[in-house]
Amino acid sequence: MTRYQVLVDEVLPDEMLSLMAEDCEVHVWPADEAALAPLLPAAEGLLTYGHPRVDGALMDRMPKLRVISNFGVGVDHIDLEAARQRGIPVGNTPRILDGATADMTFALLLAAARNLVVGDRYARSPDFTHYDPSLFLGQEVHGATLGIIGMGSIGRQVARRARGFDMTVLYHNRRRDLQAEAERGRRNAGRPDTRGRANFGTHKTPATRETRG
Amino acid sequence: MTRYQVLVDEVLPDEMLSLMAEDCEVHVWPADEAALAPLLPAAEGLLTYGHPRVDGALMDRMPKLRVISNFGVGVDHIDLEAARQRGIPVGNTPRILDGATADMTFALLLAAARNLVVGDRYARSPDFTHYDPSLFLGQEVHGATLGIIGMGSIGRQVARRARGFDMTVLYHNRRRDLQAEAERGRRNAGRPDTRGRANFGTHKTPATRETRG
Repeated sequence: MTRYQVLVDEVLPDEMLSLMAEDCEVHVWPADEAALAPLLPAAEGLLTYGHPRVDGALMDRMPKLRVISNFGVGVDHIDLEAARQRGIPVGNTPRILDGATADMTFALLLAAARNLVVGDRYARSPDFTHYDPSLFLGQEVHGATLGIIGMGSIGRQVARRARGFDMTVLYHNRRRDLQAEAERGRRNAGRPDTRGRANFGTHKTPATRETRG
Repeated sequence: MTRYQVLVDEVLPDEMLSLMAEDCEVHVWPADEAALAPLLPAAEGLLTYGHPRVDGALMDRMPKLRVISNFGVGVDHIDLEAARQRGIPVGNTPRILDGATADMTFALLLAAARNLVVGDRYARSPDFTHYDPSLFLGQEVHGATLGIIGMGSIGRQVARRARGFDMTVLYHNRRRDLQAEAERGRRNAGRPDTRGRANFGTHKTPATRETRG
């Protein structure tokens, strides 16, 4: 059987390669153009793992390209309109990482609030000579106000976690989310208020012209 | 007015000193015994901020001692029975830090699970040369099982936060906590099971002979 020719922009973990090995011949995107040039015309699939720019000019160099698959939900680096015009479907992984992303949001929020990384570095340094319960106290998280810009499926997961910390959630979204507002302590607010009145903030939006800056 | 003579084991933050300045003359516990000796007989109050050992022998050197106050809830370092025999009340700060302690429990749990400190160090090092979404993935937190040894007021706060992460909570306590069990996903278990079947674990108990080891 001839295997599908697949181009991928990064060296993949073995678990992923073994899943594809039976049906696909996987080529890693080479760094230099001379090595890349002969791979493009044969490629039937493109798997983007990092965030390489995939535009119409690239697609035009891949006449056999039948599918683009993206590792992750964000496809800001892929020109979806160019793909549509060429009849190339683009796949991504919505929902799969919502929980992990919300977990990581709280990992970063708590670590920033309570100086975890700074404190770890200090504790391993010669400067740390005695116990002092007032060092690097940072800010309280429970009872604080969290601003969420973008109340999509990830934003809602973040809001659920915030409730366990007795946080007030202000959110800003293109559309009001009445289901979210029905839950205790979630209020719709304008973007300036969501930013300005919150103690902590997180953006859970696609990167578009509307959401940048 | 003669101010109360208070001995404290650490240099206190200014906010704390200013609260006491009107009524108390605060002496910081000196490192050498020769300087300490004259302070002990006059001290009417002892404020423990770090965890110095406070036993009957020390109390016997402080004949005017009328109160021991501890910064924090844990009084493992104070011989409560020796204080009781001498009629010296011992104060601590129960409940005040329950929320902060539960927040910090999740800060540490999430950071350990998702390799936050390790990843931060890597990202700042010359070894970090390109984006790889599979580096330092660690373990999923949401949906995992959390074992809580000691379901007191801090343990219950930890359990509340765990619910926002869809975690199953196993707990072990001297007494069963039926109110806790009434909440979704909390189950009473023996100490070996609470430790052995959980993906993550936390101890929220006083340090006694029963809970050590």
